[in-house]
Amino acid sequence: MIVEIINTGSEIMLGRVLNTHQQWLCAQLAALGYVVNRQVAVPDSAADIQNAIAESLTRSQLVICTGGLGPTSDDLTRDMVAKLLGKELREDPSVTAHIKLFFDARKRPMPELTRVQAQVPEGATVLHNAHGTAPGLVLKVNPNRFHPESLPALLIMLPGPPRELRPMFLDSVVPLLKRELPLESGFVCVTLRTAGIGESIVQEKIHGSLIELVKAGLDVGYCARPWQVDIRLSARGGTARTLVENAERLVRQELGRNIYSSEDEELSGVIVSALSSRKHTLVLAESCTGGFIANQLTNVPGSSAVFLAGIVSYSNESKQKLLGVQQASLDQHGAVSQEVARQMAEGGKNLFRADYGLAVTGIAGPSGGTLEKPVGTVFIALAGPSETVVHHHLNPYDRETFKMVTCQQALELLRRKLI
Amino acid sequence: MIVEIINTGSEIMLGRVLNTHQQWLCAQLAALGYVVNRQVAVPDSAADIQNAIAESLTRSQLVICTGGLGPTSDDLTRDMVAKLLGKELREDPSVTAHIKLFFDARKRPMPELTRVQAQVPEGATVLHNAHGTAPGLVLKVNPNRFHPESLPALLIMLPGPPRELRPMFLDSVVPLLKRELPLESGFVCVTLRTAGIGESIVQEKIHGSLIELVKAGLDVGYCARPWQVDIRLSARGGTARTLVENAERLVRQELGRNIYSSEDEELSGVIVSALSSRKHTLVLAESCTGGFIANQLTNVPGSSAVFLAGIVSYSNESKQKLLGVQQASLDQHGAVSQEVARQMAEGGKNLFRADYGLAVTGIAGPSGGTLEKPVGTVFIALAGPSETVVHHHLNPYDRETFKMVTCQQALELLRRKLI
Repeated sequence: MIVEIINTGSEIMLGRVLNTHQQWLCAQLAALGYVVNRQVAVPDSAADIQNAIAESLTRSQLVICTGGLGPTSDDLTRDMVAKLLGKELREDPSVTAHIKLFFDARKRPMPELTRVQAQVPEGATVLHNAHGTAPGLVLKVNPNRFHPESLPALLIMLPGPPRELRPMFLDSVVPLLKRELPLESGFVCVTLRTAGIGESIVQEKIHGSLIELVKAGLDVGYCARPWQVDIRLSARGGTARTLVENAERLVRQELGRNIYSSEDEELSGVIVSALSSRKHTLVLAESCTGGFIANQLTNVPGSSAVFLAGIVSYSNESKQKLLGVQQASLDQHGAVSQEVARQMAEGGKNLFRADYGLAVTGIAGPSGGTLEKPVGTVFIALAGPSETVVHHHLNPYDRETFKMVTCQQALELLRRKLI
Repeated sequence: MIVEIINTGSEIMLGRVLNTHQQWLCAQLAALGYVVNRQVAVPDSAADIQNAIAESLTRSQLVICTGGLGPTSDDLTRDMVAKLLGKELREDPSVTAHIKLFFDARKRPMPELTRVQAQVPEGATVLHNAHGTAPGLVLKVNPNRFHPESLPALLIMLPGPPRELRPMFLDSVVPLLKRELPLESGFVCVTLRTAGIGESIVQEKIHGSLIELVKAGLDVGYCARPWQVDIRLSARGGTARTLVENAERLVRQELGRNIYSSEDEELSGVIVSALSSRKHTLVLAESCTGGFIANQLTNVPGSSAVFLAGIVSYSNESKQKLLGVQQASLDQHGAVSQEVARQMAEGGKNLFRADYGLAVTGIAGPSGGTLEKPVGTVFIALAGPSETVVHHHLNPYDRETFKMVTCQQALELLRRKLI
């Protein structure tokens, strides 16, 4: 099956935004067994959009197009597809009603311009947009209208904003694909998520034991993310399940506790579940990560049951006033030190009589480094029920990557204590 | 001038890596005045690479292809281009010497496999790779070999690793483009960033006044992000600068203070600059945003000069203990109330004698809503030097979007006070 993705948007072509749809959709589709053969990005121009869609339809059985469904004058996909396929646009009252409801819920008047989003090409299936006003659109295309040799294809149009596209893909497109374009051979895929070991070490550790399974048809993929590596084990056909199960067993033997999940789950989700099931509580004291860890934890629904408070102690005064860090320790060891990390973790824990206090202090850069403590230096302290441990890391990355990596290291320290 | 980019790599098509070349190259090219008309990604497959290059050459005067120049069996671009254009591959002794030097400098033997990278299609110009072994390749293509109607084109092949590609582009490709493909007409582009008004309202407000300029060649684009809309004004040719300047003036007249930047800048960056230049300080008290705002602010280098502390008061106890919120107010009005937001902002400000205290309390969902205070309810309080204001919003989105939108609203409230 040939699958193509088309991303529309002049801001993409000007390099103003990073096209994250491409990776996200490719990864989602690959996990379902549909490997993307080509991805194309074009600007918000009628001719470019029409040409790209027409060309993809002559080659593919599945074309997914993102963007250009909004209310403004540069949102052209809906019109261009209707023209290309010779379909009339008609107002779909259910979409109009949804748009009205959307603005009612926000106590705002419905701008007249937004009504254009209810224009649907005849024959199209509408995909509900739970997070915005532009619906997704699906058309079964008999493409011989413009290319007689081509195969019939499914054309799926999704709205551009990621927070609208992603839930729509998961809730509506995945069931649609399974129904309309079932894969001929079974496809089994398991992703094991590891923390704390690099991609090449992961590969060195598991490569040898998987060789026979790879010869028998197992596919192994690696995805390196900050301080974590996802291992994707997949196979097709009648023996797919056995192959993947055997591979998972071998990988678990080699990597053991480095594996923190076999679901599409973040480390923060694993932590919240583990704390919840033990009825344990946590206080965070963050300096160099500036709230990043608190934000990750509070992205998990239910985190309020276990996360009592986070203190972003970005100044020395706040470390002293809120966490009880001693002036003498700051003078003698500096704010970025094992001693201060320990006092931050214990201070946070004691203030709320929590079960755990987790603290980080470090130098995110770009400035502030010294010979002794270069940019990237970080101390992570975990105060638990019986003891406090402090780990030292060097994370010499840009500011945002530094935060991500440090957060993963801190959460992994807590996970190892909990699980 | 038609410009296209081709990115090769199976790992891109499986969604294992994010294709950052696309944004980086598009932004670099746009800044030089070459706007990319199409970007294509294909897997490491001979047929896919050949088809993509052949198609691009029939449409474009400039084609930049990334990846597939390395030494392994899936590096196919060099061979495929030579075949496509009917060129012989010949070893270039200067490249072989460079590869030898590269390994000598690292005191490692030169692997025999790497020698293939010195194979150069006849007639190609070699671009020096200062950070790796695979050279870049440039071919002037007389394309009527495979498409008689097409124009002559420049085909530039660059190595895949970003730390090799980027310096090669800046050091070798930029001078080459200026020499070989000088632009006949100038390209001018300005992006205005707005906060607090929706995409369709923005268009309603500015559409009318820009009509004449659009007829004269102005291009207007919109990019909607959570609670902000970017407006892109661009034009080409001799009148480009006048067109864009006139458009900017008209848009500023209509949208006034809603515009917070004409640079590629986030609201958090504007806030840190404004506080810094006034030598003012800020304390954050976050409940429902869970550290998101602190994280945004501390992503800005230099934020430590103005941001004293953030308190993520996720429990009632932490609101009382750290911010001095009164038990009676919690009992009478609830944690999500105008009264508690005000006490949080003032408590944070007073604790550190800061100039500003900014506080948010709300219901992020998915649970916790009531009839009176549904999911998405949020109160934002700003305690300033002379008074405290509290705003009420309803942001009924998923948890992460709720945080983003609420953060923008809080930062915008502060910006309006500052600027």
